[in-house]
Amino acid sequence: MYELHFGVPMAGAILCALNTRHDSAMVSVLLKHSEAKILFVDQQLYHIAHGALQILSKTSSNLPLVILVLDSQSIVVGNTTAPSRGELEYESFLETGKLDFEVKRPKDELDPISVNYTSGTTSSPKGVVYSHRGAYLNSLATVLLNEMGSMPVYLWTVPMFHCNGWCMTWGVAAQGGTNVCLRDVTAKSIFRIVAEYRVTHMGAAPTVLSMMINAPSCDQKPLPGKVVVMTGAAPPPPQVLFKMESLGFMVVHSYGLTEVYGAGTICAWKPEWDDLPPDTRATLRARQGVPHLGLERLDVMDPITMRSVPSDAKTIGEVMFRGNTVMRRYLKDLKATQEAFKGGWFHSGDLAVRHTDGYIELKDRSKDIIISGGENISTIEVESVLFSHPGVLEAAVVGRPDEHWGEMPCAFVKLKDGFDHVTSEEIIAFCRDKLPHYMAPKTVVFGDLPKTSTGKTQKYILREKAKAMGSLSHKKPSKL
Amino acid sequence: MYELHFGVPMAGAILCALNTRHDSAMVSVLLKHSEAKILFVDQQLYHIAHGALQILSKTSSNLPLVILVLDSQSIVVGNTTAPSRGELEYESFLETGKLDFEVKRPKDELDPISVNYTSGTTSSPKGVVYSHRGAYLNSLATVLLNEMGSMPVYLWTVPMFHCNGWCMTWGVAAQGGTNVCLRDVTAKSIFRIVAEYRVTHMGAAPTVLSMMINAPSCDQKPLPGKVVVMTGAAPPPPQVLFKMESLGFMVVHSYGLTEVYGAGTICAWKPEWDDLPPDTRATLRARQGVPHLGLERLDVMDPITMRSVPSDAKTIGEVMFRGNTVMRRYLKDLKATQEAFKGGWFHSGDLAVRHTDGYIELKDRSKDIIISGGENISTIEVESVLFSHPGVLEAAVVGRPDEHWGEMPCAFVKLKDGFDHVTSEEIIAFCRDKLPHYMAPKTVVFGDLPKTSTGKTQKYILREKAKAMGSLSHKKPSKL
Repeated sequence: MYELHFGVPMAGAILCALNTRHDSAMVSVLLKHSEAKILFVDQQLYHIAHGALQILSKTSSNLPLVILVLDSQSIVVGNTTAPSRGELEYESFLETGKLDFEVKRPKDELDPISVNYTSGTTSSPKGVVYSHRGAYLNSLATVLLNEMGSMPVYLWTVPMFHCNGWCMTWGVAAQGGTNVCLRDVTAKSIFRIVAEYRVTHMGAAPTVLSMMINAPSCDQKPLPGKVVVMTGAAPPPPQVLFKMESLGFMVVHSYGLTEVYGAGTICAWKPEWDDLPPDTRATLRARQGVPHLGLERLDVMDPITMRSVPSDAKTIGEVMFRGNTVMRRYLKDLKATQEAFKGGWFHSGDLAVRHTDGYIELKDRSKDIIISGGENISTIEVESVLFSHPGVLEAAVVGRPDEHWGEMPCAFVKLKDGFDHVTSEEIIAFCRDKLPHYMAPKTVVFGDLPKTSTGKTQKYILREKAKAMGSLSHKKPSKL
Repeated sequence: MYELHFGVPMAGAILCALNTRHDSAMVSVLLKHSEAKILFVDQQLYHIAHGALQILSKTSSNLPLVILVLDSQSIVVGNTTAPSRGELEYESFLETGKLDFEVKRPKDELDPISVNYTSGTTSSPKGVVYSHRGAYLNSLATVLLNEMGSMPVYLWTVPMFHCNGWCMTWGVAAQGGTNVCLRDVTAKSIFRIVAEYRVTHMGAAPTVLSMMINAPSCDQKPLPGKVVVMTGAAPPPPQVLFKMESLGFMVVHSYGLTEVYGAGTICAWKPEWDDLPPDTRATLRARQGVPHLGLERLDVMDPITMRSVPSDAKTIGEVMFRGNTVMRRYLKDLKATQEAFKGGWFHSGDLAVRHTDGYIELKDRSKDIIISGGENISTIEVESVLFSHPGVLEAAVVGRPDEHWGEMPCAFVKLKDGFDHVTSEEIIAFCRDKLPHYMAPKTVVFGDLPKTSTGKTQKYILREKAKAMGSLSHKKPSKL
């Protein structure tokens, strides 16, 4: 996958890295939509690709050429270790290349370099088109916000199919770095590899950080030196940032989405924050911050009037982006593209406030926010209180219908091992102690949380569950 | 000067920073050529500006508005501490600004941001036009090649009028850094300030490095931590790099010229060089290297056929540049612009070879190279041998006419204090010991070297001196 991030654009083609957790049906849809000409597939995923091609062959006679990547060091699944008829093996395919091949540079710097299908938490996947210009600028900006000097050692836990690995695929090469890849993203492997390869930088979604800090201490190997961890993709709970720093990691918090090439902002650290108490520092670190050096404009606006919200840390608006590191368009979806760029800015769908220093802080996805008795409740805020409970491993809050208030917060919680004794009442009391009462969950449900393939909690599933529980009813309005 | 690097472009104007060592006559020529509308002048240079305006007033009635910068901490020269009629004082001028002023962004990213007049070692000064796009990209590339993380402390010994401070004016701001400026560039001040302000990065021409390493050890204060020094502007003698590293500095060697916004290449360090002997490391560090991350193409070509020279470390060609970080044009000089871009590449006028690993190494300016008996003699190579002599502080080599060979190397040498006993014969013998005999100087002249205002040796003056000495004559060809 890493090599293809260079070989494909240099051959004048467009890269379309697919999510490794998609099933055959989804892969067939994306192969068709992207009109892929060549399909590179790792042996571990051969059965998915095979299934996808079978589906595709029913409606199309133009199947992509399949090139199978065999890895002698990897676990072989099934009997798919050798390419069958009509397929090529990757290394043999490379040998057919010419050493004097002249790189096919883009005719225009705005020509596409890649298409990234969004993970689709809500709707059908959309193909986000990246340009050479945008990818170049976001790679450099991401290198800079990662404090990445020359010759870093980068550990991949962020999938390269996710915004082309937050553009770090190209960024690590720009800095002459070493890439360390792992097939099993477990805390034990991560700590072992960080120590063994003297990793200097890594990226990880908050859910991976959560896994790392909650690993048994025997798995938590000492760090070999300064290790910068960039996190993003979902708002990281301050508690998670705090614990990562206690383990010695230097956490860089960045925010963005597929449509802005991965990272778009950076919570640039201020020297005057150094002397604050650790939990205050973690709260500040959890802010999404300011635009990075590749982005032209970041704003929080009323999506109807397109006016900026005041920097009062209170007024909620939608996060908007403009500049080179914003996608060109959704592939073959003019309507969605126009919708996304209404008013000349890219609408992120994320709700945020702006602090007096200009730093933005996400409050919710626009579809996730709970409106209770006319008040906005940021599910992120409630979740970050839940995360500060010692027994909570994962938490997600959605609205549950309420006869009187419209909606009430409902928490889905996964407890840590050894905390099975924790009750709903205890969680609710814990929240009421730390939040305005109307923000505290009225319902707590224990269990695993449904996740997307990129590790984001699928709140729409939880919302359906909460809806299925029925409305909370009241003889008289609850005392808040 | 630093503030103007932001205020001027944000006002939609073009910055033209003038060399502080120009005399009134030159300043008047440049004010006229650039059609400057406003002249900001530091009190220390008021007499120069005043003289320039007097000259200008003889041929023009459109004199620029003068804004005088007073600095209570600086030495006041003459009685020019208060603005006279028709002039404004800088701080009062700033107070007339409006807080809600809307930044005037460029209409096109290729619009000019600044004009930089070249120091003119050979011809009349040329106004090199920088674009917003180029300045942005070169600033980021220079930050990256300086290994500059966030919040650096940058010491200015590189003048900000020189390629806008190698674009570090904007680069330091991009990284949220602190700028430390000094009026007297002496080794003592530099070491003191580096320690006092905990400087992390600085830039310095080789001549400043030379001054630093040759300072009395009582002036050489211990470094406060890792200090990155970027050097360039002239090929640094390996001996100088070696001694800087011995003092604990991390030297970054970059090469470029005004027309490529300052830095254009980086001698990117390779891990396999770490274990080589120190003098070999210094020789490798002295190579000009590879293009930086903002430059599209760097090549060494025959300027007539425009074909690349082989990577054989032997064949000399001219260094050529292409890309965003190459100037737009020379202001009002179409002929010089066309000449400079013949064949679609910017011709640097520098001669170099390319090593097998692709790294380039400068051999000479095309006008400086000595041709002796049909052989090219790189004056840079001869100079680097001279620099390795313990008594040599500065050295420059030019061709002296020779009846038989055409030209023979002639060395101009400035000796260190306490080395007055060193003779020409000793220097010549020293060189013959370390170089092919035909490359060793036949003549050695002791004394100060003439310098341009940016610290480059003015070889054309030395060439005239060498010419004035007359031809070396031979009864019979010397034995080489």
